[in-house]
Amino acid sequence: MKYPTALEDLIECFSHLPSVGKKTAERYALYCLTHMDEADIVDFSNALIGITKDIHICTSCGNLAEGDLCDICKDSSRNHKQVLVVENVKDLFTIEKINSYRGVYHVLNGAISFSKGISINDLNIEPLIDRVKNKEIDEIILATNATLEGETTARYLKELLNTYPINITRIAHGLPVGGDLSYADEMTVLKAFEGRREY
Amino acid sequence: MKYPTALEDLIECFSHLPSVGKKTAERYALYCLTHMDEADIVDFSNALIGITKDIHICTSCGNLAEGDLCDICKDSSRNHKQVLVVENVKDLFTIEKINSYRGVYHVLNGAISFSKGISINDLNIEPLIDRVKNKEIDEIILATNATLEGETTARYLKELLNTYPINITRIAHGLPVGGDLSYADEMTVLKAFEGRREY
Repeated sequence: MKYPTALEDLIECFSHLPSVGKKTAERYALYCLTHMDEADIVDFSNALIGITKDIHICTSCGNLAEGDLCDICKDSSRNHKQVLVVENVKDLFTIEKINSYRGVYHVLNGAISFSKGISINDLNIEPLIDRVKNKEIDEIILATNATLEGETTARYLKELLNTYPINITRIAHGLPVGGDLSYADEMTVLKAFEGRREY
Repeated sequence: MKYPTALEDLIECFSHLPSVGKKTAERYALYCLTHMDEADIVDFSNALIGITKDIHICTSCGNLAEGDLCDICKDSSRNHKQVLVVENVKDLFTIEKINSYRGVYHVLNGAISFSKGISINDLNIEPLIDRVKNKEIDEIILATNATLEGETTARYLKELLNTYPINITRIAHGLPVGGDLSYADEMTVLKAFEGRREY
């Protein structure tokens, strides 16, 4: 026996979300059906449509924007000569949360991945080169993840940008604050060792 | 810095789902924004509206239905003299999946819970009594969960239905198939012991 078609359709939609399997999708859909009133569901439905209408991609950096440019690119109090390169919008917001970076960003929309078939042409790299060419940029901070994909992308960008008179840096990788050396994986310990500084 | 309003709204909606915190809701909403095309999002939005329009509650048993009666209550090949009582629709579908129960159901929509303030008046019990009074029912199988709430509800129903000339049974609780005795909790072992049968 199957659920009614309308419910099966909703389960199918929920199961497309990341890390959501059939069982969880079932749970979400049944929750909507049994615990939400009609007004809540209409709000949910409108919120989904809302993101297709009201959110754009910043033409300068690739961040989310409500107009042509995002709030960060529009902010003249920020240092537009310092550009931090991240894989995706979520990483950008993670850095914004620490509330201490005052430069601007560039969102790549992914990282080079041979296994997933993501090449340099799929990433938002060309506009970054244009920004370097056209503007007076002092520093590019590579903040791609410390994964095979993130490292490959960082290396590629370094090669690509090396010909321009800018300072290229990479964020530090090492032991997390509060982390115990004996619990850390080998790559993290290696990075912490390689990245040691005068004390 | 906050996400654009439309995205914040969607994060808020996702965070109402069971066991979904702020971080997971953020992940779901960003996934919708960056990995789904507009058509997928419109489908998702319509699927949500769909459950408010196309799904009703079966007037006989409380199961999900596309018309007045659910597919199970409409099915004349099933044994309508045998009624299995479950806490919710999900439990009903779990039993349907084993594909061997051929009777009908009654969905209570919860269980008596003093901590959550759910009393007998909040449950779909009255229609069950009506079914017992009006129809020739031979057996009521109590399949509420083996929790404090489920047991309380089962006991209450037994008291309530005891005056009618029907057979009242309770599903078996014990060690799960493939389960190891040494890993089972004390209540499960106790139930397995109490429920022992001639071999």
